[in-house]
Amino acid sequence: MSANVPTDIRFSFSGLIKRGGETADHKDGWGIAFYEGKGYRSFHDPIASADSAVAKFIQGYPIKSTAVICHIRKANRGRVCLENTHPFSRELWGITWSFAHNGQLKGIKNKQLNHYQPVGTTDSEYAFCWMLGQLKKTFPEKPKQKKEIRLVIDRLCREIATLGVFNMLLSDAANLYVYCSTKLSWITRQAPFQEAQLKDADVSVDFKNETSIDDVVTVIATEPLTTNEEWVQMGRNEFMVVSLGKQVPHR
Amino acid sequence: MSANVPTDIRFSFSGLIKRGGETADHKDGWGIAFYEGKGYRSFHDPIASADSAVAKFIQGYPIKSTAVICHIRKANRGRVCLENTHPFSRELWGITWSFAHNGQLKGIKNKQLNHYQPVGTTDSEYAFCWMLGQLKKTFPEKPKQKKEIRLVIDRLCREIATLGVFNMLLSDAANLYVYCSTKLSWITRQAPFQEAQLKDADVSVDFKNETSIDDVVTVIATEPLTTNEEWVQMGRNEFMVVSLGKQVPHR
Repeated sequence: MSANVPTDIRFSFSGLIKRGGETADHKDGWGIAFYEGKGYRSFHDPIASADSAVAKFIQGYPIKSTAVICHIRKANRGRVCLENTHPFSRELWGITWSFAHNGQLKGIKNKQLNHYQPVGTTDSEYAFCWMLGQLKKTFPEKPKQKKEIRLVIDRLCREIATLGVFNMLLSDAANLYVYCSTKLSWITRQAPFQEAQLKDADVSVDFKNETSIDDVVTVIATEPLTTNEEWVQMGRNEFMVVSLGKQVPHR
Repeated sequence: MSANVPTDIRFSFSGLIKRGGETADHKDGWGIAFYEGKGYRSFHDPIASADSAVAKFIQGYPIKSTAVICHIRKANRGRVCLENTHPFSRELWGITWSFAHNGQLKGIKNKQLNHYQPVGTTDSEYAFCWMLGQLKKTFPEKPKQKKEIRLVIDRLCREIATLGVFNMLLSDAANLYVYCSTKLSWITRQAPFQEAQLKDADVSVDFKNETSIDDVVTVIATEPLTTNEEWVQMGRNEFMVVSLGKQVPHR
């Protein structure tokens, strides 16, 4: 999620966590990361989100955030344990970057790492460490032009995606970088707001009652989270940057 | 806390969080970090721990861990916000390091940083970034001898402590590095276990019912957390390393 005002993710979260063991089999751990200004906090549990007490707590606890990344894991590479649970995070240029990924990457571990080392054993964390290391090598200091960063991330994503499936979310608090290798959809909600009905739970919300007229919120998910809204399916190998709820033209 | 078996911190935590706004005025945010194997997860809230719903949740949720760092903040340098809330964490050598500090450090920001940059504005996070950067500069790869790491951390702590008050906890999952500039106490609990009574809350526990005969648990705190046990007060500028619940001779 990316939003122009601190926004509560609980509606989307309530649908997504069902896919961790209830409406889908992504039951090998889950995590969620919230940006509050430059601040960052994350919650992880190496068990099915549908059964997680931490997930239940988050569902009832409204953290307002302008950027959120949430992931429910279906393990392929790397055993089920806390250190293999997304989102992963590292600091670059005094900013906490976070990362979540669906897919498999054949041979990613042949790539040379520099500044960052994985703690766990997933392909995903390795790819994140490599990507952030390349970014740091390209720009030892944060470049003034945001566009430069976007172009490098786009290029790095395309390079990784040649190794397999790389559906990815990456954030530096201000921006949400999205790479769709095979499957991601998004929706932007803004005035006039309407009612939305979750796909995975019998829950609906009328955003008219929850929002102000100027709010803009974009949600990206592997599969649409609601049944009565128009989600846009991303194309293969499409890269997108969202900032404060809106897509940023990046070329 | 450092323990030789995954141990539940809830008893000590229940006392400590009272000091965040109830029995003491460290009410400017709090955080707790748990190691589960190599895995790391932390919970932060930029409000008083005595009022925090996250703290209440943690109090009722038994996370078993061999190393825990918890901090309740009394702000002096750096405003009250999420990014200024301890413990701080960074990855070095594929290990998540975490850090919490009480005290003020005059002129710490004159020290040259290299690999790590602070996200927030506290002296503490700056000191942590400097320390970890020095460690990485000294040992680009993790040295085989643990003793080498201990000696360098000891030296770095002494250098920082010349700038003011530096009561510190640092962990790399396997070890808890403790530096007492002015005020820290510790206790090691092992068989025969006895009952303990919290100082800040009307709560007691009989550790005989909670432990196995081989368990060894060391707890370090600014001030003793219980009233009926013998805590050992650390000396000024004393450095200590605890691993799996036991002090490690480090020289």
